[in-house]
Amino acid sequence: MILIDGKKTAADIREEIKNEVTELVKQGKRPPHLVAVLVGNDPASLAYVGSKERLSKKVGFNSTLWHFDDQITEAELLKTLDKLNRDKTVDGYIIQLPLPAHIDEQKIIMAIDPNKDVDGFHPLNLGKMLAQIPGFLPATPYGIMELIERYKIETSGKNVLIIGRSLIVGRPLSILMSQKRSGGNATVTLAHSRTKNIKQLAQQADIIVTALGKPHFLTADMVKDGVVVIDAGINSVAAPDTKRGYKLVGDADFENISKKAAYMTPVPGGVGPMTIAMLLKNTLQAYKLVESGKR
Amino acid sequence: MILIDGKKTAADIREEIKNEVTELVKQGKRPPHLVAVLVGNDPASLAYVGSKERLSKKVGFNSTLWHFDDQITEAELLKTLDKLNRDKTVDGYIIQLPLPAHIDEQKIIMAIDPNKDVDGFHPLNLGKMLAQIPGFLPATPYGIMELIERYKIETSGKNVLIIGRSLIVGRPLSILMSQKRSGGNATVTLAHSRTKNIKQLAQQADIIVTALGKPHFLTADMVKDGVVVIDAGINSVAAPDTKRGYKLVGDADFENISKKAAYMTPVPGGVGPMTIAMLLKNTLQAYKLVESGKR
Repeated sequence: MILIDGKKTAADIREEIKNEVTELVKQGKRPPHLVAVLVGNDPASLAYVGSKERLSKKVGFNSTLWHFDDQITEAELLKTLDKLNRDKTVDGYIIQLPLPAHIDEQKIIMAIDPNKDVDGFHPLNLGKMLAQIPGFLPATPYGIMELIERYKIETSGKNVLIIGRSLIVGRPLSILMSQKRSGGNATVTLAHSRTKNIKQLAQQADIIVTALGKPHFLTADMVKDGVVVIDAGINSVAAPDTKRGYKLVGDADFENISKKAAYMTPVPGGVGPMTIAMLLKNTLQAYKLVESGKR
Repeated sequence: MILIDGKKTAADIREEIKNEVTELVKQGKRPPHLVAVLVGNDPASLAYVGSKERLSKKVGFNSTLWHFDDQITEAELLKTLDKLNRDKTVDGYIIQLPLPAHIDEQKIIMAIDPNKDVDGFHPLNLGKMLAQIPGFLPATPYGIMELIERYKIETSGKNVLIIGRSLIVGRPLSILMSQKRSGGNATVTLAHSRTKNIKQLAQQADIIVTALGKPHFLTADMVKDGVVVIDAGINSVAAPDTKRGYKLVGDADFENISKKAAYMTPVPGGVGPMTIAMLLKNTLQAYKLVESGKR
């Protein structure tokens, strides 16, 4: 079995970005600038935004955190976005989700300048993805496409089962993998909570992507020999023996499936690290659009 | 077998729209206004635009044809769209495709005001469809969803095979049918030219939608008893015995599949007539957005 090492691949991508930024700065240009907008103090969000900031700086970006109290009103947050949209020193920004309940997430996403939407969440970028017009791809599916490409996994004409129809992972990936493109041309089935014959579908699949958030949902009896499994699930389960008292596992039973699979991602260290790497890649792309005068 | 009568359903929808428009006019309001933009004199395009105009008028809409010589430049056409975008008496408009080779179709589509894009081709509307934000759905898949709904065909948890990944039929339909919505919640597989095991996939499907443009591609040996077949193909084949010398057939072998199917659309008279009906529905929706002050 070949382990799809997302941790290493993400590090490679960051290295490529860093080299490009170093070169740009050497030429006297400003570095790209990514802003993260965080509302409130949710520990997971704080940790995630912290990683983004740290890795942004590591590749040589300017990185700024705009941190607001969770009492900020929707109007105030919209004003902030307007400021970010106008600020020519900001190439891209992300709004860390979820937002507090009194703020309409959809309204906020619609207010992001699509040219600065490096998370690829704005409907215009989703539509561009659908129409195969250049734009920003959502970072996690983009990361999966990158893993498929770098590991040279054949997808054309393959039967792909994607489990989970979320707008940030399963749904966009189902589109990308069935489009005429590198890492695409697959026959994709998108399964979800209403799917009745998941075991049968899984057994027929050449490639399975799990993105539903259920620990050990995919078991070894559900997959065929030589399957490729990409696990986008990150679930925290109790582990009394460990120091932290919990551990992270995916949606697939790695221990047993890895004995049958041709390729498989681990959790952690598989899809997870790719998300931030692709966010940085999107930011560099946004920067280039500005610098080349294309927007 | 129950025949899915698109001709009758489309007439029902037009009747509903007509009644609404009659009521609006009775209240002293202006009727909705749909503009069709046609470049050149392609006979099929002329016929199609003619039908749109005739049916628009029949439901009480104002209908205008903006007809240009095929020598019109891209810049002139963009200027025309700008005029249409600003014109407050125009609720919606469509650009009849294809456009001459010297005009960049994508550039033209991007220039349509998404609020007037009643064909649902602008990436913002595609993205809204993906994110399930209200917008305009592309007319043909919207028409298929309407047929499914009006014929009360159960889709939740069903295995649906869609053959053909075009941006105007197969692709958006694959999204709509797998979303959490009426006519949705199906387990959808999207097949296309690179799919290798189409017969096996078809035999497992509870519902098959053909949208690839190949006469009699789907044959009776490929489907199971009780299947639902929706045929979005419209192919012109030679028919020396007829007056016109040709006849229209779908992608499915109606004669033989209809003996096994539970529900099936004919061609012509199935999906075809629904497209214009849904275009009119989109135009009425655009009108309501203006009149209610929502845009």
